[in-house]
Order: sequence, then C-alpha cells, then structure tokens
Amino acid sequence: MEIKSKIGNRIKELREIKQMSQKDLAYSADLDRSYIASVENGKRNISIVNIEKIAVALGVSLKEFFNKQEFN
Amino acid sequence: MEIKSKIGNRIKELREIKQMSQKDLAYSADLDRSYIASVENGKRNISIVNIEKIAVALGVSLKEFFNKQEFN
Repeated sequence: MEIKSKIGNRIKELREIKQMSQKDLAYSADLDRSYIASVENGKRNISIVNIEKIAVALGVSLKEFFNKQEFN
Repeated sequence: MEIKSKIGNRIKELREIKQMSQKDLAYSADLDRSYIASVENGKRNISIVNIEKIAVALGVSLKEFFNKQEFN
C-alpha cells in the first residue's frame, strides 16, 4: 500500500478511537475538513508540519503515530 | 525544537550512522543534494513521500525513523 494511504488510514483509525468527527479533527488541528477528508482518502502528500498538527489534535506523539506494523 | 529541525537532525544522525555522504543519500533517494542539505538544516517542510524515500535509502522503516525520544 502507498504511504499516502497508510497515513490516511492511520489518521482515520486514531480519529475513530478518539471518537472525533472529521470536523472535530479539522477544528482542533486548524485545518480544513475537506483537507482532512482527502488526507484520509490517501489523496494528499501531507507534510510533516501537518502530520504533527494532526497528531497533536489526536493526542498522540509522532512516535506513537508511526508505532504500527504497517510502518515497519 | 521545531519538527522540521527534529526531522533534519534525525536524517543526519542516521546518515552518519550509515556512513553515507549527503551526495550518497541524495543519489540513493533520487533527490537533490541541495534538497537533502536544506532538509537536514531544518529549512524544509518535507512531505511524507520524501521522508519515506529517505528512510528507504537509509535502510530504516518509518517506525524506526520515528522511534526516538525527541518524537515522543
């Protein structure tokens, strides 16, 4: 699977664990909801600054964010 | 420290462990040497696709790349 899709899936997984909507996450990360949707769909080559914003909004560190078998 | 600098430091650390020059890494990752230099200096908001290219060239997974205290 392409890295853009792996990142999108991981964000969606963590967002659902935290019981946040895309709108909640967008608001908390100061990003657009449509941008969050396209990232989750694997359509964006997201930057590290935006990955960090999203991780902070989801309450995880970058170490935790990437601590999954699919990133190994 | 800003995330862009943390990423740059981590790339430099791994590159030196692997005893690669910036030129070696650039060649192996199919990126420009000047781009590698600016990323290592914390001047670039690098994308996930380029982080993955660099991690592959350095012989580490993304999980390993981010498995450091500074990303926690």
